[in-house]
Amino acid sequence: MNSKKPSTRRDFMKSAAVITSGTFGLSVAPHFSTAATLPIEDRLNVIGPREGFAPHIGTLLSMMTWMRDVILRPVEKMNVEQLDFLLDENSNSIGAMLLHLAATERFYQIHTFEGKKWGDFPKEDLDRFEVAMNLGDEARKTIKGNTFDYYLEIMTEVRENSIREFKKRDDNWLMKVDEDFPWGPTNNYCKWFHVCEHESNHNGQFKYIKSRLPGGKFSRG
Amino acid sequence: MNSKKPSTRRDFMKSAAVITSGTFGLSVAPHFSTAATLPIEDRLNVIGPREGFAPHIGTLLSMMTWMRDVILRPVEKMNVEQLDFLLDENSNSIGAMLLHLAATERFYQIHTFEGKKWGDFPKEDLDRFEVAMNLGDEARKTIKGNTFDYYLEIMTEVRENSIREFKKRDDNWLMKVDEDFPWGPTNNYCKWFHVCEHESNHNGQFKYIKSRLPGGKFSRG
Repeated sequence: MNSKKPSTRRDFMKSAAVITSGTFGLSVAPHFSTAATLPIEDRLNVIGPREGFAPHIGTLLSMMTWMRDVILRPVEKMNVEQLDFLLDENSNSIGAMLLHLAATERFYQIHTFEGKKWGDFPKEDLDRFEVAMNLGDEARKTIKGNTFDYYLEIMTEVRENSIREFKKRDDNWLMKVDEDFPWGPTNNYCKWFHVCEHESNHNGQFKYIKSRLPGGKFSRG
Repeated sequence: MNSKKPSTRRDFMKSAAVITSGTFGLSVAPHFSTAATLPIEDRLNVIGPREGFAPHIGTLLSMMTWMRDVILRPVEKMNVEQLDFLLDENSNSIGAMLLHLAATERFYQIHTFEGKKWGDFPKEDLDRFEVAMNLGDEARKTIKGNTFDYYLEIMTEVRENSIREFKKRDDNWLMKVDEDFPWGPTNNYCKWFHVCEHESNHNGQFKYIKSRLPGGKFSRG
Protein backbone atom coordinates (compact mmCIF):
# COMPACT_ATOMS: atom_id res chain seq x y z
CA MET A 1 0.00 0.00 0.00
CA ASN A 2 0.95 3.67 -0.28
CA SER A 3 3.36 4.31 2.56
CA LYS A 4 4.37 7.86 1.51
CA LYS A 5 3.90 10.46 4.22
CA PRO A 6 0.93 12.68 3.26
CA SER A 7 2.24 16.04 2.08
CA THR A 8 -0.36 17.39 -0.34
CA ARG A 9 -4.13 17.46 -0.55
CA ARG A 10 -3.86 14.70 -3.18
CA ASP A 11 -1.77 12.64 -0.76
CA PHE A 12 -4.33 13.27 1.98
CA MET A 13 -6.96 11.95 -0.41
CA LYS A 14 -4.83 8.88 -1.12
CA SER A 15 -4.44 8.27 2.60
CA ALA A 16 -8.14 8.85 3.07
CA ALA A 17 -8.80 6.14 0.51
CA VAL A 18 -6.47 3.77 2.32
CA ILE A 19 -8.03 4.58 5.68
CA THR A 20 -11.48 4.17 4.18
CA SER A 21 -10.56 0.81 2.77
CA GLY A 22 -9.04 -0.27 6.05
CA THR A 23 -12.18 0.70 7.88
CA PHE A 24 -14.80 -0.49 5.44
CA GLY A 25 -13.05 -3.34 3.59
CA LEU A 26 -13.02 -1.60 0.22
CA SER A 27 -10.40 -3.22 -2.01
CA VAL A 28 -7.43 -0.93 -2.64
CA ALA A 29 -5.31 -0.44 -5.74
CA PRO A 30 -1.73 -1.62 -5.29
CA HIS A 31 0.02 1.77 -5.24
CA PHE A 32 -1.06 5.39 -5.85
CA SER A 33 -4.78 5.87 -5.71
CA THR A 34 -7.36 8.66 -5.67
CA ALA A 35 -10.73 8.86 -4.00
CA ALA A 36 -13.70 9.85 -6.16
CA THR A 37 -17.32 10.46 -5.30
CA LEU A 38 -19.85 10.50 -8.11
CA PRO A 39 -23.64 10.29 -8.30
CA ILE A 40 -25.23 7.08 -9.59
CA GLU A 41 -27.50 7.73 -12.57
CA ASP A 42 -29.35 5.61 -15.10
CA ARG A 43 -30.20 8.08 -17.86
CA LEU A 44 -28.75 7.17 -21.28
CA ASN A 45 -26.92 10.47 -21.84
CA VAL A 46 -25.49 10.64 -18.35
CA ILE A 47 -22.14 8.86 -18.42
CA GLY A 48 -21.02 7.71 -14.99
CA PRO A 49 -21.34 5.02 -12.31
CA ARG A 50 -24.25 2.59 -12.47
CA GLU A 51 -26.04 0.86 -9.60
CA GLY A 52 -24.69 -2.66 -9.11
CA PHE A 53 -21.32 -2.04 -10.75
CA ALA A 54 -17.95 -0.79 -9.48
CA PRO A 55 -17.70 2.98 -10.17
CA HIS A 56 -15.38 2.87 -13.18
CA ILE A 57 -16.83 -0.37 -14.58
CA GLY A 58 -20.29 1.20 -14.39
CA THR A 59 -18.96 4.30 -16.11
CA LEU A 60 -17.45 2.19 -18.90
CA LEU A 61 -20.75 0.29 -19.24
CA SER A 62 -22.65 3.59 -19.49
CA MET A 63 -20.40 4.53 -22.45
CA MET A 64 -20.89 1.15 -24.11
CA THR A 65 -24.67 1.43 -23.69
CA TRP A 66 -24.71 4.99 -25.10
CA MET A 67 -22.46 4.00 -28.00
CA ARG A 68 -24.60 0.98 -28.90
CA ASP A 69 -27.72 3.14 -29.00
CA VAL A 70 -25.96 5.62 -31.31
CA ILE A 71 -24.63 3.07 -33.79
CA LEU A 72 -27.92 1.18 -34.15
CA ARG A 73 -29.87 4.32 -35.13
CA PRO A 74 -28.54 4.62 -38.71
CA VAL A 75 -29.14 0.93 -39.49
CA GLU A 76 -32.11 -0.31 -37.46
CA LYS A 77 -34.62 0.42 -40.24
CA MET A 78 -32.59 -1.26 -42.98
CA ASN A 79 -33.93 -4.19 -44.97
CA VAL A 80 -31.90 -7.28 -45.91
CA GLU A 81 -30.87 -5.80 -49.28
CA GLN A 82 -29.54 -2.67 -47.62
CA LEU A 83 -27.73 -4.64 -44.91
CA ASP A 84 -26.11 -6.77 -47.65
CA PHE A 85 -25.21 -3.85 -49.97
CA LEU A 86 -21.55 -3.64 -51.05
CA LEU A 87 -20.49 -0.12 -52.08
CA ASP A 88 -17.55 -1.56 -54.03
CA GLU A 89 -15.81 -4.93 -54.38
CA ASN A 90 -13.64 -4.26 -51.31
CA SER A 91 -16.40 -2.89 -49.08
CA ASN A 92 -17.85 -4.81 -46.19
CA SER A 93 -21.62 -4.94 -45.86
CA ILE A 94 -23.26 -3.20 -42.91
CA GLY A 95 -24.67 -6.58 -41.87
CA ALA A 96 -21.21 -8.15 -41.79
CA MET A 97 -19.89 -5.19 -39.79
CA LEU A 98 -22.68 -5.57 -37.22
CA LEU A 99 -21.69 -9.21 -36.75
CA HIS A 100 -18.04 -8.05 -36.65
CA LEU A 101 -18.87 -5.87 -33.63
CA ALA A 102 -20.43 -8.84 -31.81
CA ALA A 103 -17.39 -10.97 -32.74
CA THR A 104 -14.97 -8.36 -31.42
CA GLU A 105 -16.82 -8.08 -28.12
CA ARG A 106 -16.97 -11.89 -27.76
CA PHE A 107 -13.22 -12.29 -28.38
CA TYR A 108 -12.41 -9.55 -25.82
CA GLN A 109 -14.67 -11.39 -23.35
CA ILE A 110 -12.69 -14.60 -23.78
CA HIS A 111 -9.41 -12.68 -23.53
CA THR A 112 -10.19 -10.45 -20.52
CA PHE A 113 -12.79 -12.52 -18.57
CA GLU A 114 -11.42 -16.01 -19.20
CA GLY A 115 -7.76 -14.93 -19.22
CA LYS A 116 -6.94 -16.51 -22.60
CA LYS A 117 -4.06 -15.07 -24.62
CA TRP A 118 -5.30 -12.95 -27.55
CA GLY A 119 -5.95 -15.38 -30.42
CA ASP A 120 -6.33 -18.43 -28.16
CA PHE A 121 -10.07 -18.77 -28.66
CA PRO A 122 -12.29 -21.89 -28.27
CA LYS A 123 -13.29 -23.67 -31.48
CA GLU A 124 -16.99 -22.97 -30.92
CA ASP A 125 -16.34 -19.23 -30.81
CA LEU A 126 -14.04 -19.34 -33.85
CA ASP A 127 -16.67 -21.35 -35.74
CA ARG A 128 -19.28 -18.74 -34.87
CA PHE A 129 -17.33 -15.50 -35.13
CA GLU A 130 -13.96 -15.87 -36.93
CA VAL A 131 -15.28 -14.96 -40.39
CA ALA A 132 -17.07 -11.87 -39.03
CA MET A 133 -13.97 -10.94 -37.04
CA ASN A 134 -11.82 -11.00 -40.19
CA LEU A 135 -14.38 -9.48 -42.60
CA GLY A 136 -13.14 -9.34 -46.23
CA ASP A 137 -13.81 -11.88 -48.98
CA GLU A 138 -15.04 -14.77 -46.84
CA ALA A 139 -17.45 -12.48 -44.97
CA ARG A 140 -18.72 -11.02 -48.27
CA LYS A 141 -19.40 -14.56 -49.50
CA THR A 142 -21.06 -15.98 -46.40
CA ILE A 143 -22.59 -13.19 -44.26
CA LYS A 144 -25.71 -12.16 -46.18
CA GLY A 145 -29.47 -12.60 -46.33
CA ASN A 146 -30.02 -11.77 -42.65
CA THR A 147 -32.51 -9.30 -41.18
CA PHE A 148 -31.49 -6.50 -38.81
CA ASP A 149 -33.10 -8.45 -35.95
CA TYR A 150 -30.79 -11.40 -36.67
CA TYR A 151 -27.74 -9.21 -36.07
CA LEU A 152 -29.31 -7.36 -33.13
CA GLU A 153 -30.12 -10.61 -31.33
CA ILE A 154 -26.50 -11.81 -31.51
CA MET A 155 -25.10 -8.39 -30.51
CA THR A 156 -27.51 -8.27 -27.56
CA GLU A 157 -26.73 -11.83 -26.43
CA VAL A 158 -22.99 -11.04 -26.41
CA ARG A 159 -23.54 -7.70 -24.65
CA GLU A 160 -25.63 -9.35 -21.91
CA ASN A 161 -22.69 -11.63 -21.15
CA SER A 162 -20.37 -8.60 -20.86
CA ILE A 163 -22.79 -7.06 -18.37
CA ARG A 164 -23.02 -10.28 -16.31
CA GLU A 165 -19.22 -10.49 -16.14
CA PHE A 166 -18.74 -6.75 -15.38
CA LYS A 167 -21.08 -7.17 -12.38
CA LYS A 168 -18.72 -9.75 -10.84
CA ARG A 169 -15.61 -7.56 -11.08
CA ASP A 170 -14.13 -4.51 -9.33
CA ASP A 171 -12.19 -1.49 -10.56
CA ASN A 172 -8.85 -3.10 -9.72
CA TRP A 173 -9.66 -5.71 -12.39
CA LEU A 174 -10.51 -2.88 -14.81
CA MET A 175 -7.13 -1.25 -14.13
CA LYS A 176 -5.14 -4.50 -14.38
CA VAL A 177 -2.31 -4.06 -16.92
CA ASP A 178 -1.47 -6.80 -19.44
CA GLU A 179 2.25 -6.19 -20.02
CA ASP A 180 2.32 -8.62 -22.97
CA PHE A 181 -0.56 -7.31 -25.10
CA PRO A 182 0.41 -7.16 -28.83
CA TRP A 183 0.18 -3.35 -29.05
CA GLY A 184 2.06 -2.85 -25.74
CA PRO A 185 1.19 -2.76 -22.00
CA THR A 186 -2.59 -2.28 -21.88
CA ASN A 187 -5.13 -2.40 -19.07
CA ASN A 188 -8.59 -3.95 -19.21
CA TYR A 189 -10.12 -0.46 -19.24
CA CYS A 190 -8.23 0.32 -22.46
CA LYS A 191 -9.21 -3.01 -24.04
CA TRP A 192 -12.89 -2.40 -23.28
CA PHE A 193 -12.73 1.27 -24.25
CA HIS A 194 -11.42 0.02 -27.59
CA VAL A 195 -14.37 -2.41 -27.90
CA CYS A 196 -16.59 0.66 -27.37
CA GLU A 197 -14.89 3.19 -29.71
CA HIS A 198 -14.52 0.44 -32.34
CA GLU A 199 -18.33 0.55 -32.71
CA SER A 200 -18.07 4.27 -33.51
CA ASN A 201 -15.34 3.55 -36.07
CA HIS A 202 -17.71 1.24 -37.96
CA ASN A 203 -20.62 3.62 -37.44
CA GLY A 204 -18.67 6.15 -39.51
CA GLN A 205 -18.62 3.53 -42.28
CA PHE A 206 -22.32 2.67 -41.76
CA LYS A 207 -23.18 6.32 -42.37
CA TYR A 208 -20.84 6.63 -45.36
CA ILE A 209 -22.43 3.56 -47.00
CA LYS A 210 -25.98 4.45 -45.95
CA SER A 211 -25.80 7.83 -47.67
CA ARG A 212 -24.83 6.01 -50.88
CA LEU A 213 -27.42 3.22 -50.92
CA PRO A 214 -29.18 2.66 -54.27
CA GLY A 215 -32.46 4.53 -54.47
CA GLY A 216 -31.25 7.11 -51.96
CA LYS A 217 -33.96 6.07 -49.49
CA PHE A 218 -31.86 7.49 -46.66
CA SER A 219 -30.51 11.02 -46.32
CA ARG A 220 -26.78 11.57 -45.95
CA GLY A 221 -25.51 10.48 -42.49
CA MET B 1 -25.95 14.19 1.71
CA ASN B 2 -26.78 10.48 1.88
CA SER B 3 -28.50 9.97 5.20
CA LYS B 4 -29.52 6.33 4.59
CA LYS B 5 -28.44 3.98 7.33
CA PRO B 6 -25.66 1.78 5.96
CA SER B 7 -27.08 -1.67 5.22
CA THR B 8 -24.97 -3.05 2.37
CA ARG B 9 -21.30 -2.98 1.43
CA ARG B 10 -22.19 -0.39 -1.24
CA ASP B 11 -23.88 1.76 1.41
CA PHE B 12 -20.84 1.38 3.65
CA MET B 13 -18.76 2.62 0.72
CA LYS B 14 -21.08 5.60 0.24
CA SER B 15 -20.79 6.46 3.92
CA ALA B 16 -17.06 6.01 3.74
CA ALA B 17 -16.94 8.54 0.92
CA VAL B 18 -18.97 11.01 2.92
CA ILE B 19 -16.82 10.54 6.01
CA THR B 20 -13.69 10.86 3.90
CA SER B 21 -14.91 14.07 2.35
CA GLY B 22 -15.96 15.44 5.73
CA THR B 23 -12.54 14.74 7.13
CA PHE B 24 -10.40 15.79 4.21
CA GLY B 25 -12.53 18.41 2.43
CA LEU B 26 -13.04 16.39 -0.74
CA SER B 27 -16.03 17.79 -2.62
CA VAL B 28 -19.02 15.45 -2.53
CA ALA B 29 -21.64 14.69 -5.18
CA PRO B 30 -25.11 15.91 -4.25
CA HIS B 31 -26.80 12.56 -3.60
CA PHE B 32 -25.75 8.90 -3.99
CA SER B 33 -22.02 8.50 -4.39
CA THR B 34 -19.45 5.74 -4.50
CA ALA B 35 -15.85 5.70 -3.39
CA ALA B 36 -13.26 4.46 -5.86
CA THR B 37 -9.55 3.93 -5.51
CA LEU B 38 -7.53 3.64 -8.69
CA PRO B 39 -3.84 3.79 -9.51
CA ILE B 40 -2.51 6.87 -11.33
CA GLU B 41 -0.71 5.89 -14.54
CA ASP B 42 0.70 7.73 -17.53
CA ARG B 43 1.16 4.96 -20.10
CA LEU B 44 -0.80 5.52 -23.33
CA ASN B 45 -2.67 2.18 -23.26
CA VAL B 46 -3.55 2.40 -19.57
CA ILE B 47 -6.90 4.19 -19.34
CA GLY B 48 -7.49 5.71 -15.91
CA PRO B 49 -6.79 8.67 -13.61
CA ARG B 50 -3.97 11.04 -14.48
CA GLU B 51 -1.76 13.05 -12.13
CA GLY B 52 -3.05 16.62 -11.79
CA PHE B 53 -6.65 15.84 -12.84
CA ALA B 54 -9.78 14.78 -10.96
CA PRO B 55 -10.07 10.95 -11.18
CA HIS B 56 -12.83 10.75 -13.80
CA ILE B 57 -11.65 13.83 -15.74
CA GLY B 58 -8.17 12.25 -15.91
CA THR B 59 -9.73 8.99 -17.07
CA LEU B 60 -11.66 10.82 -19.81
CA LEU B 61 -8.47 12.63 -20.85
CA SER B 62 -6.60 9.31 -21.03
CA MET B 63 -9.27 8.08 -23.49
CA MET B 64 -9.05 11.26 -25.56
CA THR B 65 -5.25 10.99 -25.69
CA TRP B 66 -5.40 7.31 -26.69
CA MET B 67 -8.06 7.99 -29.32
CA ARG B 68 -6.12 10.90 -30.85
CA ASP B 69 -3.02 8.71 -31.17
CA VAL B 70 -5.08 6.01 -32.92
CA ILE B 71 -6.80 8.29 -35.44
CA LEU B 72 -3.62 10.10 -36.49
CA ARG B 73 -1.81 6.88 -37.41
CA PRO B 74 -3.65 6.17 -40.69
CA VAL B 75 -3.22 9.76 -41.94
CA GLU B 76 0.03 11.20 -40.53
CA LYS B 77 2.09 10.15 -43.56
CA MET B 78 -0.34 11.54 -46.13
CA ASN B 79 0.67 14.23 -48.61
CA VAL B 80 -1.52 17.21 -49.57
CA GLU B 81 -3.02 15.39 -52.55
CA GLN B 82 -4.06 12.47 -50.38
CA LEU B 83 -5.47 14.73 -47.65
CA ASP B 84 -7.51 16.56 -50.34
CA PHE B 85 -8.71 13.42 -52.16
CA LEU B 86 -12.48 13.12 -52.67
CA LEU B 87 -13.65 9.52 -53.12
CA ASP B 88 -16.87 10.75 -54.76
CA GLU B 89 -18.67 14.08 -55.19
CA ASN B 90 -20.34 13.76 -51.79
CA SER B 91 -17.28 12.62 -49.87
CA ASN B 92 -15.43 14.83 -47.43
CA SER B 93 -11.65 14.97 -47.71
CA ILE B 94 -9.56 13.55 -44.86
CA GLY B 95 -8.06 17.02 -44.41
CA ALA B 96 -11.48 18.61 -43.99
CA MET B 97 -12.45 15.89 -41.51
CA LEU B 98 -9.30 16.52 -39.44
CA LEU B 99 -10.25 20.20 -39.22
CA HIS B 100 -13.83 19.08 -38.44
CA LEU B 101 -12.53 17.23 -35.36
CA ALA B 102 -10.75 20.37 -34.13
CA ALA B 103 -13.91 22.41 -34.82
CA THR B 104 -16.09 19.98 -32.89
CA GLU B 105 -13.76 20.04 -29.88
CA ARG B 106 -13.61 23.86 -29.96
CA PHE B 107 -17.40 24.22 -30.04
CA TYR B 108 -17.79 21.77 -27.13
CA GLN B 109 -15.19 23.85 -25.22
CA ILE B 110 -17.24 27.01 -25.69
CA HIS B 111 -20.43 25.15 -24.74
CA THR B 112 -19.18 23.26 -21.67
CA PHE B 113 -16.35 25.50 -20.38
CA GLU B 114 -17.82 28.93 -21.14
CA GLY B 115 -21.43 27.87 -20.52
CA LYS B 116 -22.76 29.08 -23.88
CA LYS B 117 -25.90 27.44 -25.27
CA TRP B 118 -25.11 25.02 -28.12
CA GLY B 119 -24.93 27.13 -31.28
CA ASP B 120 -24.23 30.41 -29.44
CA PHE B 121 -20.61 30.65 -30.55
CA PRO B 122 -18.39 33.78 -30.84
CA LYS B 123 -17.89 35.21 -34.35
CA GLU B 124 -14.14 34.54 -34.27
CA ASP B 125 -14.75 30.82 -33.65
CA LEU B 126 -17.46 30.62 -36.30
CA ASP B 127 -15.18 32.40 -38.78
CA ARG B 128 -12.43 29.90 -38.05
CA PHE B 129 -14.38 26.65 -37.65
CA GLU B 130 -17.97 26.85 -38.95
CA VAL B 131 -17.19 25.56 -42.46
CA ALA B 132 -15.18 22.63 -41.07
CA MET B 133 -17.95 21.94 -38.52
CA ASN B 134 -20.54 21.69 -41.31
CA LEU B 135 -18.37 19.90 -43.89
CA GLY B 136 -20.15 19.34 -47.25
CA ASP B 137 -19.90 21.58 -50.35
CA GLU B 138 -18.39 24.68 -48.75
CA ALA B 139 -15.71 22.58 -47.02
CA ARG B 140 -14.94 20.77 -50.31
CA LYS B 141 -14.48 24.16 -51.97
CA THR B 142 -12.39 25.89 -49.33
CA ILE B 143 -10.53 23.34 -47.16
CA LYS B 144 -7.70 22.09 -49.40
CA GLY B 145 -4.03 22.47 -50.17
CA ASN B 146 -2.92 22.04 -46.55
CA THR B 147 -0.22 19.74 -45.23
CA PHE B 148 -0.84 17.21 -42.43
CA ASP B 149 1.17 19.45 -40.09
CA TYR B 150 -1.25 22.32 -40.74
CA TYR B 151 -4.17 20.22 -39.47
CA LEU B 152 -2.15 18.68 -36.63
CA GLU B 153 -1.12 22.10 -35.33
CA ILE B 154 -4.72 23.30 -35.08
CA MET B 155 -5.93 20.03 -33.53
CA THR B 156 -3.11 20.21 -30.97
CA GLU B 157 -3.75 23.87 -30.12
CA VAL B 158 -7.42 23.10 -29.46
CA ARG B 159 -6.59 19.98 -27.44
CA GLU B 160 -4.13 21.90 -25.26
CA ASN B 161 -6.94 24.26 -24.31
CA SER B 162 -9.17 21.30 -23.35
CA ILE B 163 -6.38 20.01 -21.10
CA ARG B 164 -5.87 23.43 -19.45
CA GLU B 165 -9.60 23.68 -18.73
CA PHE B 166 -9.93 20.06 -17.51
CA LYS B 167 -7.17 20.78 -14.97
CA LYS B 168 -9.30 23.53 -13.37
CA ARG B 169 -12.38 21.33 -12.90
CA ASP B 170 -13.55 18.51 -10.63
CA ASP B 171 -15.63 15.39 -11.21
CA ASN B 172 -18.81 17.11 -10.05
CA TRP B 173 -18.45 19.41 -13.08
CA LEU B 174 -17.95 16.34 -15.28
CA MET B 175 -21.18 14.82 -13.93
CA LYS B 176 -23.20 18.05 -14.22
CA VAL B 177 -26.38 17.36 -16.24
CA ASP B 178 -27.61 19.82 -18.90
CA GLU B 179 -31.37 19.18 -18.84
CA ASP B 180 -31.90 21.27 -21.99
CA PHE B 181 -29.37 19.73 -24.37
CA PRO B 182 -30.88 19.17 -27.87
CA TRP B 183 -30.68 15.36 -27.71
CA GLY B 184 -32.02 15.24 -24.11
CA PRO B 185 -30.59 15.55 -20.58
CA THR B 186 -26.83 15.05 -20.97
CA ASN B 187 -23.90 15.45 -18.61
CA ASN B 188 -20.51 16.94 -19.42
CA TYR B 189 -18.97 13.47 -19.30
CA CYS B 190 -21.32 12.36 -22.11
CA LYS B 191 -20.63 15.49 -24.17
CA TRP B 192 -16.87 14.95 -23.92
CA PHE B 193 -17.14 11.19 -24.45
CA HIS B 194 -18.95 12.09 -27.67
CA VAL B 195 -16.11 14.45 -28.68
CA CYS B 196 -13.80 11.43 -28.17
CA GLU B 197 -15.82 8.69 -29.93
CA HIS B 198 -16.60 11.14 -32.77
CA GLU B 199 -12.89 10.95 -33.68
CA SER B 200 -13.24 7.18 -34.04
CA ASN B 201 -16.33 7.63 -36.21
CA HIS B 202 -14.30 9.71 -38.68
CA ASN B 203 -11.30 7.37 -38.36
CA GLY B 204 -13.53 4.65 -39.80
CA GLN B 205 -14.01 6.96 -42.80
CA PHE B 206 -10.29 7.83 -42.95
CA LYS B 207 -9.48 4.14 -43.29
CA TYR B 208 -12.25 3.53 -45.84
CA ILE B 209 -10.95 6.38 -48.02
CA LYS B 210 -7.26 5.59 -47.43
CA SER B 211 -7.68 2.04 -48.73
CA ARG B 212 -9.15 3.52 -51.95
CA LEU B 213 -6.61 6.27 -52.67
CA PRO B 214 -5.39 6.45 -56.28
CA GLY B 215 -2.14 4.53 -56.77
CA GLY B 216 -2.92 2.28 -53.81
CA LYS B 217 0.12 3.59 -51.93
CA PHE B 218 -1.51 2.52 -48.68
CA SER B 219 -2.74 -0.96 -47.77
CA ARG B 220 -6.34 -1.47 -46.84
CA GLY B 221 -7.13 -0.02 -43.37
